[in-house]
Amino acid sequence: MTKIKGKKIKLGIVGGGSGSWIGHVHRIAARFDDQYEIVSGVFSRNPKTSSKFGQSLGINKDRCYSDYKKMANIEAKRTDGINVVAIMTPPGSHQIIAETFINKNINIISDKPFAGNLKQAKSLFKKIKSNKKIKYTLTHNYSAYPMVREAKDLVLKGKIGKINFINVEYVQDWADGNRITKNNSKKILSWKLQKNIVGTSSVLNEIGSHAYHLAIYISGLKAKSIFADIKQVSKKVKMDDNAQVMINFNNDAKGILWTSVSAKGGVYGLRIRLFGEKGSLEWVQNDPGYLKLNPAKKASRLLERGFHEAKFSKNFSRIKYGHPEGYLDAFANIYREFAKSLKNKSGYKYVYPNEDEGLETAKFIEACTVSSKRKRWVKL
Amino acid sequence: MTKIKGKKIKLGIVGGGSGSWIGHVHRIAARFDDQYEIVSGVFSRNPKTSSKFGQSLGINKDRCYSDYKKMANIEAKRTDGINVVAIMTPPGSHQIIAETFINKNINIISDKPFAGNLKQAKSLFKKIKSNKKIKYTLTHNYSAYPMVREAKDLVLKGKIGKINFINVEYVQDWADGNRITKNNSKKILSWKLQKNIVGTSSVLNEIGSHAYHLAIYISGLKAKSIFADIKQVSKKVKMDDNAQVMINFNNDAKGILWTSVSAKGGVYGLRIRLFGEKGSLEWVQNDPGYLKLNPAKKASRLLERGFHEAKFSKNFSRIKYGHPEGYLDAFANIYREFAKSLKNKSGYKYVYPNEDEGLETAKFIEACTVSSKRKRWVKL
Amino acid sequence: MTKIKGKKIKLGIVGGGSGSWIGHVHRIAARFDDQYEIVSGVFSRNPKTSSKFGQSLGINKDRCYSDYKKMANIEAKRTDGINVVAIMTPPGSHQIIAETFINKNINIISDKPFAGNLKQAKSLFKKIKSNKKIKYTLTHNYSAYPMVREAKDLVLKGKIGKINFINVEYVQDWADGNRITKNNSKKILSWKLQKNIVGTSSVLNEIGSHAYHLAIYISGLKAKSIFADIKQVSKKVKMDDNAQVMINFNNDAKGILWTSVSAKGGVYGLRIRLFGEKGSLEWVQNDPGYLKLNPAKKASRLLERGFHEAKFSKNFSRIKYGHPEGYLDAFANIYREFAKSLKNKSGYKYVYPNEDEGLETAKFIEACTVSSKRKRWVKL
Amino acid sequence: MTKIKGKKIKLGIVGGGSGSWIGHVHRIAARFDDQYEIVSGVFSRNPKTSSKFGQSLGINKDRCYSDYKKMANIEAKRTDGINVVAIMTPPGSHQIIAETFINKNINIISDKPFAGNLKQAKSLFKKIKSNKKIKYTLTHNYSAYPMVREAKDLVLKGKIGKINFINVEYVQDWADGNRITKNNSKKILSWKLQKNIVGTSSVLNEIGSHAYHLAIYISGLKAKSIFADIKQVSKKVKMDDNAQVMINFNNDAKGILWTSVSAKGGVYGLRIRLFGEKGSLEWVQNDPGYLKLNPAKKASRLLERGFHEAKFSKNFSRIKYGHPEGYLDAFANIYREFAKSLKNKSGYKYVYPNEDEGLETAKFIEACTVSSKRKRWVKL
Repeated sequence: MTKIKGKKIKLGIVGGGSGSWIGHVHRIAARFDDQYEIVSGVFSRNPKTSSKFGQSLGINKDRCYSDYKKMANIEAKRTDGINVVAIMTPPGSHQIIAETFINKNINIISDKPFAGNLKQAKSLFKKIKSNKKIKYTLTHNYSAYPMVREAKDLVLKGKIGKINFINVEYVQDWADGNRITKNNSKKILSWKLQKNIVGTSSVLNEIGSHAYHLAIYISGLKAKSIFADIKQVSKKVKMDDNAQVMINFNNDAKGILWTSVSAKGGVYGLRIRLFGEKGSLEWVQNDPGYLKLNPAKKASRLLERGFHEAKFSKNFSRIKYGHPEGYLDAFANIYREFAKSLKNKSGYKYVYPNEDEGLETAKFIEACTVSSKRKRWVKL
Repeated sequence: MTKIKGKKIKLGIVGGGSGSWIGHVHRIAARFDDQYEIVSGVFSRNPKTSSKFGQSLGINKDRCYSDYKKMANIEAKRTDGINVVAIMTPPGSHQIIAETFINKNINIISDKPFAGNLKQAKSLFKKIKSNKKIKYTLTHNYSAYPMVREAKDLVLKGKIGKINFINVEYVQDWADGNRITKNNSKKILSWKLQKNIVGTSSVLNEIGSHAYHLAIYISGLKAKSIFADIKQVSKKVKMDDNAQVMINFNNDAKGILWTSVSAKGGVYGLRIRLFGEKGSLEWVQNDPGYLKLNPAKKASRLLERGFHEAKFSKNFSRIKYGHPEGYLDAFANIYREFAKSLKNKSGYKYVYPNEDEGLETAKFIEACTVSSKRKRWVKL
Repeated sequence: MTKIKGKKIKLGIVGGGSGSWIGHVHRIAARFDDQYEIVSGVFSRNPKTSSKFGQSLGINKDRCYSDYKKMANIEAKRTDGINVVAIMTPPGSHQIIAETFINKNINIISDKPFAGNLKQAKSLFKKIKSNKKIKYTLTHNYSAYPMVREAKDLVLKGKIGKINFINVEYVQDWADGNRITKNNSKKILSWKLQKNIVGTSSVLNEIGSHAYHLAIYISGLKAKSIFADIKQVSKKVKMDDNAQVMINFNNDAKGILWTSVSAKGGVYGLRIRLFGEKGSLEWVQNDPGYLKLNPAKKASRLLERGFHEAKFSKNFSRIKYGHPEGYLDAFANIYREFAKSLKNKSGYKYVYPNEDEGLETAKFIEACTVSSKRKRWVKL
Repeated sequence: MTKIKGKKIKLGIVGGGSGSWIGHVHRIAARFDDQYEIVSGVFSRNPKTSSKFGQSLGINKDRCYSDYKKMANIEAKRTDGINVVAIMTPPGSHQIIAETFINKNINIISDKPFAGNLKQAKSLFKKIKSNKKIKYTLTHNYSAYPMVREAKDLVLKGKIGKINFINVEYVQDWADGNRITKNNSKKILSWKLQKNIVGTSSVLNEIGSHAYHLAIYISGLKAKSIFADIKQVSKKVKMDDNAQVMINFNNDAKGILWTSVSAKGGVYGLRIRLFGEKGSLEWVQNDPGYLKLNPAKKASRLLERGFHEAKFSKNFSRIKYGHPEGYLDAFANIYREFAKSLKNKSGYKYVYPNEDEGLETAKFIEACTVSSKRKRWVKL
């Protein structure tokens, strides 16, 4: 790994230009805990656009690039070169960009999904595993909410017993461009729902991957086989926007995953419930500081972040119980924990999402695509 | 139809003896609006038990029977004989009992499901349709909640546009005998999860039928084809206790139905969401007096029973907004509306569930059973 | 007490004529558990109106009266005369009517408030206490919700320790006639907000009395002194419609009571929270089947009616956990328990509200009126 | 005002040392939007402690002070001196520190309350108004939640009409040291509940000031007179920990404010409801991204941050609807808006809280103290 000098980790960015929402999010996350300094980046293929935006972030002109390969080459040679690159381009390019930087022994923070398709995923996975000098994290940010980690901890401690059923859903409403800002919706339509850019399946890559990751992260299970039904609901888009999947998990638990970007009036609903022999757990992103623990034969417990029965969650939190944390606080956890790892500080029990989870999710999406086409159960 | 004399309809009961929960429910429902008088019944195959319990309800000794055929024969001959029989025996006997009374021109209130299997359902359906002298209702009681009817009304009025997706679930926790009263749980295990008594599928007959009925009732749609995965989760029972179903509706909408009686810590959760081109609707039984209407581009509306924007619901309600109604009030709606129909009063727009919905539900359950076995999509 | 012959208690009614909401409620409550038979009543001062409505309820013509004194005299002489009279006239006449029937040794079910003012209340209290032959209950129906009784049980068991603070509110919106039915609103305006009919304070008599009763019922405490601010908010009415009260309880706990019938968009909200040394309890009528128990140092518990940690609530309930009960079920509890008491059956631990609570509430309202006028703390 | 050079505003800090929660919060808020650079500070009266902590934040050794006067003097003389000082010491010292920096023409960000008592408040208010070179903001952070600002906007637009009633409460549980970390609780006891350090009233200064500020901020009203009852509930503390206040607002609206730090099991509950002639609004901090608008005669609207009917809230937000924001995002709004103001950028309609609100709140607290002692209504 490139050696970290001084207090702050030197961060480069590929993607996330001026109109990008996720770029904005990554930058706030990087700043949150004062662990990173953004010193370099590619923000557009157009040199002027990239340079202008980079400089608005306080990056020196000579470290604003318009080509990620050039950036990797030059930064790798500088004595004050970047320690980490954060990649936030469309899914189909995650693999090729990550591999380029890995070849230069630069650590990776990648936006999800892991790769555009299973083939890419396998290549990237191999590349990461073969370079012991670098570390990799994938921003499956929902897994970094304190109460999601509390849920994982409770499962590990056996609080709900053997898991029998998982019901997870992530539904949004933007397929038709149903956003306030017209600019945004146009951008979404121009690439988020076009196959050549996104990869295998739009809705599964975009948000279904988060839902599946959340399920395997909390439960510690994996899909053994799946049956999927993927569909295009909106007539305004060029790709699938709704998917429902039945899952057989590797412990024989059953599951349902539903994801959609065409669920009008079902705005941004990420919700997971896990049912075990001793009780159930429920977490919803809209109320992220709480976790319902429903023991089979006792009253429902509403665990609150940082409050007595949810002590574990304090490790992944910054402010007191009673005051809400949100999406950015959780996203920043991944940056914070990756920083600790890079600095070789003792980490937490559950650290940042990695390439193992990335590959697993890619396999899942691939299997779904096959199953939906062939109308049969498919093994992973 | 047998002529109704006086103010109250003469009601006979088959089933629902001293330990029966649903018997208790039917009797309160019959009493609620002062439209029925319980005058006759079979409450056990044991004459003494039946007579003792019947008399405790205020029924004359000579009209307490232990054999439903005998009851049908004698009551049909009496000048003050019953106008209606309410059947609340296990599913497998609904058809044969109902047909017996239909043969005597006695109106029928039947507990769900319509019949124990599709063959029985077809026979009963034909019998009902062929006798113009009688009326039939099936106590799919959840459809009689005021805000469920408000939901149906909003769908009919086009408030959410063409429906694209339906997500319905009914999950309970009692497969392992997870009840407070040990007596109850034993009784449940002794027949509710035994195939010869229940019929095709335990969990689908018991509560899945309610979930499917709710979906088709509110949406006005029907399943065109389904893919089902039925499973036995609990090791303590002798039959399936968990089922998940993907549905293609006849307007090309997709859907997911999940039902379980083994969902520990997921107690009695009946919930339905319908997503259309213009927005979505959500209703949950635990909070039955409210209905969420989420327009695609407006703030979520929380409609309340009897309050301004939910005027339609007033027709199926007894008390003012602000004061909660519950399960029994809704159950009683079916008795009240059936009474109006029997008295030929002008009815409501959406009256009691009938044999058409019964047959439809039986087809659905049969298709699920076949699909789960053959692991393929099955047409209804 | 008049001897009860047969299974059903003979019930007479004074008030609750054809347009009356509360009359409708009382009659359903009386019917709910099959313990009463309505055989007599005064439903109007107009003989024809009273007779017509009484007969529509199935009462014999000769037992439909238009004068409660006459009814008391005649019924007391009949061998099949009423055992109980249910009084549901405006507050100002509760005392005089109740006393008339008590003089004839007829048991009383009275709608709240206990009396129109404190002077009436003291007279009635004395009359009840002095006649050992009769029993009296006051339909402070909210105290009969199963989870309210669970709350009282938890307080008695010390689950929240010594109580330090009580916050109770009952707010409605109808002062301006803000109801769907215009007929209703006119009626409300014609007497509910007129002092000579209602008694001391409109809003406190109408619904504030319920809020105060709920507080003292659950906590077991009483107000030692109060500071009140009573106001008329709506310009369309002729009486106060908003009251806020600070309370010092007899254990030195503090409290706030807020009640209004002019809180637009705050429809029918009855909510109570009790804070003690070990934790707090919260109950809201809109979600009546649940009770939040928040221990000081543990996760919040959501107790559900009839479910494991809320066993006590099963005693005051009819249907299984998971299925909601409502306002009518709770109202009927008072009728059911009064019936048990009249039949001398072994009762529950917490039976129906009685004259002690009635007098206490009358004292509270009187003190509030004085305090608001004099702008100082007033002792009870 | 000291001239701002470069992109970032130079920020100095007084208070908020290593164990301070609020210091941590202020620093994240300052970092959030990349508008400030922390270059100087007093973090302890002990020079070594202050220097060590300051340097851990990346501050140069020579700009870590242990005396705020010295800091003001030196920084005012430097060409690269601080533009703004953020004060986060105990309440009683806010005034003297702020005045010292104002004298050096340094802008002020002050933690609440405005001052330790009314006398201090009046002095500080005068000082601020008399120096046209500086700007001042008070971190009444709850007013910076996007949906709180949406609420203010709706009130201004007349959506709920003339306000008749406000009910606001802020209740916490820590008086007895009821925190997870024992260290924290000790610190709290050592000064937060000691009169000489805190000022007039502990509970009103600490959190009651937030509740009152929220009420006047959203409503645009002020208290005309109040009646208060302040009490010490916990026996472990040395000062009041519970206060209830009745308010007459300057438009004749009534109100109740309740605040406590001894409400066990009522953790960190900040909630406000405003009732007007046309409907009501409700906001609770635990669910900060939503605002309930309950029109008098329509269904309740649940407005969501950034979603269609809550467009105004987008101005005070960073991420998309559907993804929760929290306490830190809101706190950072004040820093962000103050930065815009300092840079003379066009601001939002409702900018940061200022000295006018500070003085108003100080008057309120003073009046409460007097009223509680004299047991009578007190004018402001």
